Amino acid sequence: MLLQLSTWPEVEAYLERSQGIILPIGSTEQHGPTGLIGTDAICAEAIAHGVGKEIGALVGPTINVGMALHHTGFPGTMSLRPSTMILVIRDYLVSLARAGFCQFFFINGHGGNVATLKAAFAESYVTLTDLGLPNGDRARCRVANWYMCSPVYKLAKELYGDQEGAHATPSEVAVTQFVYPEAIKRVPLSPEVAKGHSIYGAADFRRRYPDGRMGSNPDLATPEHGKQFYEAAVKALSAEYLEFLAAD
Amino acid sequence: MLLQLSTWPEVEAYLERSQGIILPIGSTEQHGPTGLIGTDAICAEAIAHGVGKEIGALVGPTINVGMALHHTGFPGTMSLRPSTMILVIRDYLVSLARAGFCQFFFINGHGGNVATLKAAFAESYVTLTDLGLPNGDRARCRVANWYMCSPVYKLAKELYGDQEGAHATPSEVAVTQFVYPEAIKRVPLSPEVAKGHSIYGAADFRRRYPDGRMGSNPDLATPEHGKQFYEAAVKALSAEYLEFLAAD
Amino acid sequence: MLLQLSTWPEVEAYLERSQGIILPIGSTEQHGPTGLIGTDAICAEAIAHGVGKEIGALVGPTINVGMALHHTGFPGTMSLRPSTMILVIRDYLVSLARAGFCQFFFINGHGGNVATLKAAFAESYVTLTDLGLPNGDRARCRVANWYMCSPVYKLAKELYGDQEGAHATPSEVAVTQFVYPEAIKRVPLSPEVAKGHSIYGAADFRRRYPDGRMGSNPDLATPEHGKQFYEAAVKALSAEYLEFLAAD
Amino acid sequence: MLLQLSTWPEVEAYLERSQGIILPIGSTEQHGPTGLIGTDAICAEAIAHGVGKEIGALVGPTINVGMALHHTGFPGTMSLRPSTMILVIRDYLVSLARAGFCQFFFINGHGGNVATLKAAFAESYVTLTDLGLPNGDRARCRVANWYMCSPVYKLAKELYGDQEGAHATPSEVAVTQFVYPEAIKRVPLSPEVAKGHSIYGAADFRRRYPDGRMGSNPDLATPEHGKQFYEAAVKALSAEYLEFLAAD
Amino acid sequence: MLLQLSTWPEVEAYLERSQGIILPIGSTEQHGPTGLIGTDAICAEAIAHGVGKEIGALVGPTINVGMALHHTGFPGTMSLRPSTMILVIRDYLVSLARAGFCQFFFINGHGGNVATLKAAFAESYVTLTDLGLPNGDRARCRVANWYMCSPVYKLAKELYGDQEGAHATPSEVAVTQFVYPEAIKRVPLSPEVAKGHSIYGAADFRRRYPDGRMGSNPDLATPEHGKQFYEAAVKALSAEYLEFLAAD
Amino acid sequence: MLLQLSTWPEVEAYLERSQGIILPIGSTEQHGPTGLIGTDAICAEAIAHGVGKEIGALVGPTINVGMALHHTGFPGTMSLRPSTMILVIRDYLVSLARAGFCQFFFINGHGGNVATLKAAFAESYVTLTDLGLPNGDRARCRVANWYMCSPVYKLAKELYGDQEGAHATPSEVAVTQFVYPEAIKRVPLSPEVAKGHSIYGAADFRRRYPDGRMGSNPDLATPEHGKQFYEAAVKALSAEYLEFLAAD
Repeated sequence: MLLQLSTWPEVEAYLERSQGIILPIGSTEQHGPTGLIGTDAICAEAIAHGVGKEIGALVGPTINVGMALHHTGFPGTMSLRPSTMILVIRDYLVSLARAGFCQFFFINGHGGNVATLKAAFAESYVTLTDLGLPNGDRARCRVANWYMCSPVYKLAKELYGDQEGAHATPSEVAVTQFVYPEAIKRVPLSPEVAKGHSIYGAADFRRRYPDGRMGSNPDLATPEHGKQFYEAAVKALSAEYLEFLAAD
Repeated sequence: MLLQLSTWPEVEAYLERSQGIILPIGSTEQHGPTGLIGTDAICAEAIAHGVGKEIGALVGPTINVGMALHHTGFPGTMSLRPSTMILVIRDYLVSLARAGFCQFFFINGHGGNVATLKAAFAESYVTLTDLGLPNGDRARCRVANWYMCSPVYKLAKELYGDQEGAHATPSEVAVTQFVYPEAIKRVPLSPEVAKGHSIYGAADFRRRYPDGRMGSNPDLATPEHGKQFYEAAVKALSAEYLEFLAAD
Repeated sequence: MLLQLSTWPEVEAYLERSQGIILPIGSTEQHGPTGLIGTDAICAEAIAHGVGKEIGALVGPTINVGMALHHTGFPGTMSLRPSTMILVIRDYLVSLARAGFCQFFFINGHGGNVATLKAAFAESYVTLTDLGLPNGDRARCRVANWYMCSPVYKLAKELYGDQEGAHATPSEVAVTQFVYPEAIKRVPLSPEVAKGHSIYGAADFRRRYPDGRMGSNPDLATPEHGKQFYEAAVKALSAEYLEFLAAD
Repeated sequence: MLLQLSTWPEVEAYLERSQGIILPIGSTEQHGPTGLIGTDAICAEAIAHGVGKEIGALVGPTINVGMALHHTGFPGTMSLRPSTMILVIRDYLVSLARAGFCQFFFINGHGGNVATLKAAFAESYVTLTDLGLPNGDRARCRVANWYMCSPVYKLAKELYGDQEGAHATPSEVAVTQFVYPEAIKRVPLSPEVAKGHSIYGAADFRRRYPDGRMGSNPDLATPEHGKQFYEAAVKALSAEYLEFLAAD
Repeated sequence: MLLQLSTWPEVEAYLERSQGIILPIGSTEQHGPTGLIGTDAICAEAIAHGVGKEIGALVGPTINVGMALHHTGFPGTMSLRPSTMILVIRDYLVSLARAGFCQFFFINGHGGNVATLKAAFAESYVTLTDLGLPNGDRARCRVANWYMCSPVYKLAKELYGDQEGAHATPSEVAVTQFVYPEAIKRVPLSPEVAKGHSIYGAADFRRRYPDGRMGSNPDLATPEHGKQFYEAAVKALSAEYLEFLAAD
Repeated sequence: MLLQLSTWPEVEAYLERSQGIILPIGSTEQHGPTGLIGTDAICAEAIAHGVGKEIGALVGPTINVGMALHHTGFPGTMSLRPSTMILVIRDYLVSLARAGFCQFFFINGHGGNVATLKAAFAESYVTLTDLGLPNGDRARCRVANWYMCSPVYKLAKELYGDQEGAHATPSEVAVTQFVYPEAIKRVPLSPEVAKGHSIYGAADFRRRYPDGRMGSNPDLATPEHGKQFYEAAVKALSAEYLEFLAAD
């Protein structure tokens, strides 16, 4: 059930049986010479929609732009600053909590979002309580990274081994190929790829990772792999969401 | 050309021929008993993608959640506060301007966004200049409301007359029916519909407009109308974008 | 009744019969070679005081500095950033609402304030409600632009036709001449005057409008015209304020 | 020379001979049963205008609403929060510094403003430097409290002794009587008046100082005294401003 | 009783007998060629701990970095901006007030903190009330500057006369020598020392006060003097704290 | 070399050989019935000072209050909100970077700080660059959690096995016993201890973890263990800091 394709009376009815909602969050950032700039948002959205369908959960609109400041040395990257993102998350949660939602499950496609999301959750718990919202004290947030689900992780290791890398990975590229087969890009990739450097500012990142990849070989991706990753993630995250809801 | 489906080298190449970008902005808010909560985002996104295709312009990710505080009395509505939205727009523009973009054309689906967008533009011009970005002084923003395009407006008057109303209008509902025919909702609508009240806070709004519609009869909408609106808007906004780019 | 010339027991007594207050808001910005920098504040203040006198309404202190970032390329201009102005309006409304005020009628002299004021109103409604102030849910704000009142607008067209322009207009200059006849300025004005350009940042504005005027010929202004404008505006806004108060 | 009654070319010419500006700052707050709510703004404005006239200095628009949170238990009081006021001062100084001003002399009518003003100055020096404004590194701010000028202070002691008190003082009331003789208020004042309590929050303040006065007897004020205070303050502050400008 | 060395059940028990807490606040800033960068924090902490021990009051963790923007021209200086410090103080007070504390006594070692602290107190009173904390309306804050205690001040005059100066004073240096005798520094000091200049921005400060001292001769300091200052301050502030608690 | 015990000329000299600085960061929060409220700050500070001594690195003042909002249901806990902490870190880094520092190594004692620290680093990299500081583009931050060092982690497992738990752990308590043997607390601890719950808001946390411990048995701690942990951490972090400095 997609919030964007629902009416308010439908949401009102939904709230009587569940106060949980799934929020996909991605990023708009360079993903190497062949990865789509929307990779993280595309993956998070597709998988979140899959989970929503699988278990009848409500899925909110995708947060397309996340925390990608370290990628802003590459054109096309867009980023919120962490302090802005904390406010965005706070506003989302307050809006939803006013209507009675209190379990917020973020399906995330970008590692760079995690720290700021966690900071935002901590900040929001206080706000929801201080605003005196009915379920304010019971609010719970979780960030679930689809690429860290155990079956996804294993599959990536199996298919790509060390060439999975850490950014612009074949696994995420594969998911985008499955979702948007019309947008598969091919350009020659250098067989040498930078890896293992810590992440600091944007200029430093571009200097260390000149083509944007971090140790990955996205040439290995196929739409068929993407389907496998998608299905593994949907299954694992459906289970995790149900467990999240059920927890006392 | 969609930013989300492009690679960074493609964006780099695009920037050599254009520094303009189209940003769709909608809202996630109640649209009456039958209108989709995502109506404003769906319309803005579809039309922006249409414009991008028509004239080869780059289209960024959709801003799904806008300024809809007055609708937060209805479940499912999500809103940024204006002060948050100013920061979001600022972060978007700064990210894009670092790469060289300097003409920002927002295709907007929600009247409630306009004031905050204009405030955000004013705030951002100073920031872009003060950051010393190469094109900072030349930055230009425009908000183009698809529903205000002259041919769209005329068509709505022609098809619906006074029943077009001001919120949850048949014209916008028609566009969503065209885009998502599988999500057409039908429930009996009261023939009486509130209209003409000023907009203040959320509780006041819900009291004045109990089912969320403002003077509209969305029952009149059809997917075929939606196609007409879509085409009229794409044509008109394509022309406006080209004029925006060309202006000295 | 001017707040600045009242005592707190007088305000306490006033609140028993009315919870409305008028707040003049102007700007401190260039108004061409002969227009006063305080034009917008002078006009708003004079007319607001006139309205207060006419109908016994309380008038608060004038907000002298508004949103004029696009004029900051000309010396003497002062501006709040929109995000600051939102906080200022929020603080004003919270202070007044704590005492019981809940109808806030801004008499505005500057087009550049409107978007930010509307954003501020939306933001403040939530704050007033969340703070749990007695009338928080009933708060109502309106911005009334004196220069947009129908009789004022007509008079300007009648007296100046196309030479009214859009900034440093003869109508607003005339009002300042009526209020401060000792400060009438005369310097030769170029008969050519820029007009019709969109407004972006400050450097761009100064480049497009080199002497600060936007299509106007303030040489046409006279103190007698000013008196006419003043009287027309006071009459029209008095009626509008009473209607604003009376609305359910 | 009043900024509000000047044109931008006049300011441009002024800047060639001086980069100093005087900014009056008051407050909008209860001043006991007979003191005007605008007392602090009225005094600061009148004296600042007097200084400007005396020595040909430019005087900006009056900041009417200051930091008066502790008075908000009394109706009619308006206040900025300190964090808002810091942003307001920052925006004022940035606007003026862009045009070349770098000596900012605040003539202040309210003790409650001083701490926040000093905090704002410290914050603004960094901002002006970081923005790289031509005179950013040379910016200087001073707050001059008219009621603390040595001749004013002595005169108050001489005329009123212990009955001067600390808020709603006869000296400031006298100045308002001199400026607005038509707004002199008389109601019976309790001969007992609270004094000597520390200032904490608004509810606490009202409990400790039930009629708003702090140890003062404003009944002693006369317009003639007001004239004396005014003249003493104008003379003293004119000298202080010149000394401020001259300091290396 | 030190908060850092207590357990939460001990704090719970303490709150039953007192709702007061002492918070040391210093600065991390240059103190001339021989003064320690931590001088202000060291003095405030040592004296606060002494007061806590003397009268069984709870002492919170030291705020090591304060408002020292004007010293940032010298390496090693660290500073919060005033707007940041207001938030820090607000967060401290809200945390403590949630548990029931309502009397906050800041023992301060740095003049530059005073204005911002006072602004923070004003801002926090409103927040504590608006959050509806049990003792929100009764919150009281005071800043007590150890170096301004009458016996301390007299002792400094007696020992050093005019050579006490205003920054990097022998009295504060003496206290650090008493607390950290192993960190006594000696380098030749110029007998000429700048004094009497107003404080503006950091570059200006360094230009006016090239070695960081303001009219002081810290060579006069001895650890024995430090012990005297320490004891005088502990005694005076213990009395002041008890008076602060006792005040109605 | 401790910043607090250094002079500015000493820091100036240090900067010629190193641009790195160690910043200890802890928390002020409940640590169960016997753990000290300052545990995290005490551990981080002691270990950071040990590292500084071991390898001659400069150590800044300890950040005593971190992100502990989830512990604020227990008296004595103090916390910054994440958005405040981001500003604090930003201000620290800007101050230090102005003087030339560009490698910032945070030795951290509290898991709850990590997400916000990482968000703060990302935000600060942009700020340092945008301010145009000499080394802005080269700034690097790292957070090193002493309790996660491999030898520390192993030792804890070896000494305590499952009873190490996740908060108020015997390992951290042991370090505080080593540092402050005079503050060892003993009260009977329930043998049953809550564990394994996710962390949400403060009320939820206290409900799930009623005595504040998370699966730990701090009764196992001894000062001798503390010494072992201290030494293991100092050794491991000294190596990590040198590696951090050396990295290209």
